[in-house]
Amino acid sequence: MTVGVFVGRFQPFHNGHLEAVRYALRKVDYLYVVIGSSQKDHERDNPFTAGERIAMIKAALDHGDVDPKRWMAIPIADTDSHALWPAILRATVPPFDIVFSNDGLTTRLLKENGVKVEAVKYLERSSYSATNVRNRILEMKEWEKLVPEPVASMVKSIGGVERVRSMIHKDLEGEA
Amino acid sequence: MTVGVFVGRFQPFHNGHLEAVRYALRKVDYLYVVIGSSQKDHERDNPFTAGERIAMIKAALDHGDVDPKRWMAIPIADTDSHALWPAILRATVPPFDIVFSNDGLTTRLLKENGVKVEAVKYLERSSYSATNVRNRILEMKEWEKLVPEPVASMVKSIGGVERVRSMIHKDLEGEA
Amino acid sequence: MTVGVFVGRFQPFHNGHLEAVRYALRKVDYLYVVIGSSQKDHERDNPFTAGERIAMIKAALDHGDVDPKRWMAIPIADTDSHALWPAILRATVPPFDIVFSNDGLTTRLLKENGVKVEAVKYLERSSYSATNVRNRILEMKEWEKLVPEPVASMVKSIGGVERVRSMIHKDLEGEA
Amino acid sequence: MTVGVFVGRFQPFHNGHLEAVRYALRKVDYLYVVIGSSQKDHERDNPFTAGERIAMIKAALDHGDVDPKRWMAIPIADTDSHALWPAILRATVPPFDIVFSNDGLTTRLLKENGVKVEAVKYLERSSYSATNVRNRILEMKEWEKLVPEPVASMVKSIGGVERVRSMIHKDLEGEA
Amino acid sequence: MTVGVFVGRFQPFHNGHLEAVRYALRKVDYLYVVIGSSQKDHERDNPFTAGERIAMIKAALDHGDVDPKRWMAIPIADTDSHALWPAILRATVPPFDIVFSNDGLTTRLLKENGVKVEAVKYLERSSYSATNVRNRILEMKEWEKLVPEPVASMVKSIGGVERVRSMIHKDLEGEA
Amino acid sequence: MTVGVFVGRFQPFHNGHLEAVRYALRKVDYLYVVIGSSQKDHERDNPFTAGERIAMIKAALDHGDVDPKRWMAIPIADTDSHALWPAILRATVPPFDIVFSNDGLTTRLLKENGVKVEAVKYLERSSYSATNVRNRILEMKEWEKLVPEPVASMVKSIGGVERVRSMIHKDLEGEA
Repeated sequence: MTVGVFVGRFQPFHNGHLEAVRYALRKVDYLYVVIGSSQKDHERDNPFTAGERIAMIKAALDHGDVDPKRWMAIPIADTDSHALWPAILRATVPPFDIVFSNDGLTTRLLKENGVKVEAVKYLERSSYSATNVRNRILEMKEWEKLVPEPVASMVKSIGGVERVRSMIHKDLEGEA
Repeated sequence: MTVGVFVGRFQPFHNGHLEAVRYALRKVDYLYVVIGSSQKDHERDNPFTAGERIAMIKAALDHGDVDPKRWMAIPIADTDSHALWPAILRATVPPFDIVFSNDGLTTRLLKENGVKVEAVKYLERSSYSATNVRNRILEMKEWEKLVPEPVASMVKSIGGVERVRSMIHKDLEGEA
Repeated sequence: MTVGVFVGRFQPFHNGHLEAVRYALRKVDYLYVVIGSSQKDHERDNPFTAGERIAMIKAALDHGDVDPKRWMAIPIADTDSHALWPAILRATVPPFDIVFSNDGLTTRLLKENGVKVEAVKYLERSSYSATNVRNRILEMKEWEKLVPEPVASMVKSIGGVERVRSMIHKDLEGEA
Repeated sequence: MTVGVFVGRFQPFHNGHLEAVRYALRKVDYLYVVIGSSQKDHERDNPFTAGERIAMIKAALDHGDVDPKRWMAIPIADTDSHALWPAILRATVPPFDIVFSNDGLTTRLLKENGVKVEAVKYLERSSYSATNVRNRILEMKEWEKLVPEPVASMVKSIGGVERVRSMIHKDLEGEA
Repeated sequence: MTVGVFVGRFQPFHNGHLEAVRYALRKVDYLYVVIGSSQKDHERDNPFTAGERIAMIKAALDHGDVDPKRWMAIPIADTDSHALWPAILRATVPPFDIVFSNDGLTTRLLKENGVKVEAVKYLERSSYSATNVRNRILEMKEWEKLVPEPVASMVKSIGGVERVRSMIHKDLEGEA
Repeated sequence: MTVGVFVGRFQPFHNGHLEAVRYALRKVDYLYVVIGSSQKDHERDNPFTAGERIAMIKAALDHGDVDPKRWMAIPIADTDSHALWPAILRATVPPFDIVFSNDGLTTRLLKENGVKVEAVKYLERSSYSATNVRNRILEMKEWEKLVPEPVASMVKSIGGVERVRSMIHKDLEGEA
């Protein structure tokens, strides 16, 4: 059985991520979806908690008919030293054969540690990016079509739109 | 859909844990198996990494015919302040209805935070404990029957027996 | 007895903060002044230590005839995950009824956790901001009138003006 | 004005602590009561949160007619390196003249850093110790007379007796 | 014997650093070269690990005929609170008489703690800066002459040029 | 050039450590002496700071005529997850060929990561252990002959004997 890892922050999980999961599952038998920066939430670039992201991913993959027997999500918090990241990945995820990533640094770190990395084909990369989704939420533009339907519902039901907008002007310890 | 959480360290996952998962899945539709102290490994009381524990749990539940559509593992690292633990659980796991636990402190912390907790019926508690399994490995007694068959194989194949024994006398920065 | 919490970073404590404390003490019997980002100091946006900030607040409130029986300062360090902040607040401060804050994220986090939050009326918000005070110190403009008199004396006596200016060009591990 | 610091963990605040505060306030004009290991709670040796301990201290000192104008509580979390502790104390507490402590290591660390330390006279040291209070709670012996009356009430009203007892057998990630 | 400390991040070690070491060794008998932000690597402003930086410094100083009996490198990780930095320096480095630094904040922090600090004469400061070296690597300009020859070889042999360039567009958890 | 690593806590550096360094330097050209648990000090089992330990090692090796061109000390702090230790070692120390260690866990961790490890021959292991040295200091027995002469002087001159004894009864936040 071949095992793959797909790394992202999924803030939020969008249609491009869904296509990437499908792409990866054509290449491997089982996929660990690693949720990076898992400890971050309620920040402009990281609005959702790990728990909310796992819920979104599960809902999106179930809705997209991705077989739940073939994947599991694993949150991994950031570390100060990037050089340790491959070791943390190995310590937190069961043994794997390949990592799917388009990110330059992830790819470099893993290759420096002898891990096989493959770039993923995304659909329409420029629009299907989480940055784009968050920006459109902030700018009150239509964003729902960029994400799987259950993700849009979930973002709305947890007050995610207001949450993203509440972080425009200041952060937690913002000026007073 | 009712959602449950089952918390343990699973050092290693044993037959009592397997029964607890089965018990919980008779009560809820979906179960998050939370791997506590996920950051600990290669210690006398915590020999296995989070990744190894996820692999053991997956192998044991697959072998035990537990439906992979109905559970997922989520590692959670320790925190200094126990009072924060319920908030960490809520931030890391999708919304849940009930937590299964026999542990006094876990139960107290969660109840102090208004979470519903239910004790789990285990089989032959005294022998089916991870402490007992580790002690028997240390004392070179028969331990394999206390854990699901794939867990025994996995412990052996990763050198787990030698690992547990190598930690009897000293820890990492042990005397020299 | 009603108990309130007023959250800020107080870098430094200025006249707007003083008015906010007075406003809060008209609404509650006792006020905990929570010093956020307590672990930060000698940074451009966080020049003063927690100890210096407590000293400034105490001097300012004593000078402003705020009854010392009705308030206490409590420093709280930052945490990676904002979602944990309400739990940290509850673990570090005695039980309270209401939080006073104008900050969007603080308000949102606390409301998501069922905490009552009230906006505070400030005097002339644009000038009475700590950012404005720090900028004026940097630009060698008159800043002393924006803060209570003992705060101005204290900032000067600890070399605070030079400290703020020493951080314009580089941070601690700045280039060499 | 002379300023003192009194350091303790206050798990819980007992009659000996109260006498120590009175002793210190005969020597200095203002006292900062530093709550050490502030991040610990729900542990056998550290059952109460910083917030609960501040509430206990405030209630005990108010009940004991200690002037609220003359003291403030400041929580300080542990650090890995004890050598940093004097610097953390200085960064978190306003300038002080003397530290009151009977603890050997605290005294040594501070003296190695040129801080004046004075031993405190306690009443009946052997019985008025927090360890003794916690042990008596565990053993279901009479403990209420060892602490100020409002502390006894508070411990009971927050379920502190049950909390202490729930931690006898196992810690959070205890065996299952 | 007089002992000095020279603090830098050395990302990477360049000719200006080499001159600074020589300058310092004319003033003191022994020099500890403190590698700041030692925990950072594979970041745009901190591409190299502590180990790589120690190797570069050793190679550069050996190549530059700096007597290996007269210096040693000591890595120090960042801390949240800058106010603690002088205490960390004292706890991590053997006793010293003077610190060599041109950095405003380092100088201020140390002087606030009674440490003697001396500015260092650098050669052609504007070009011999690590920021300049990193920018030239990014922009594919000639950079090798700004660093000692063994540093240039080492950067190339560990794939440092590609590493620096791989971090232009995104960081580890970059968008996908 | 072959490069070795010798790992220890050196609390304090004793004659057995000195012999181990000599042994290692007969096998390799250059040796990195890694000071483990570098962040610990003023604890019963870890009385000395990293800086004090570097000073002791340097004095002992100079006194023992070990060529200063052939070694350097590098402090490394503990990490929660032992599985990351080999990656931290690789990130903090320049490239090496072999690690010298008698410790079971260190040996196992490194071998699990494909690092070559060799046991070191010590002189009279039972007496030349740092635990034995600390115990003899505590028990007021003769301990000076177990360590190189400059280490004995240094321990005394920094008040190390009193420091070790001050930690018998309580730790920093000890009972009051």
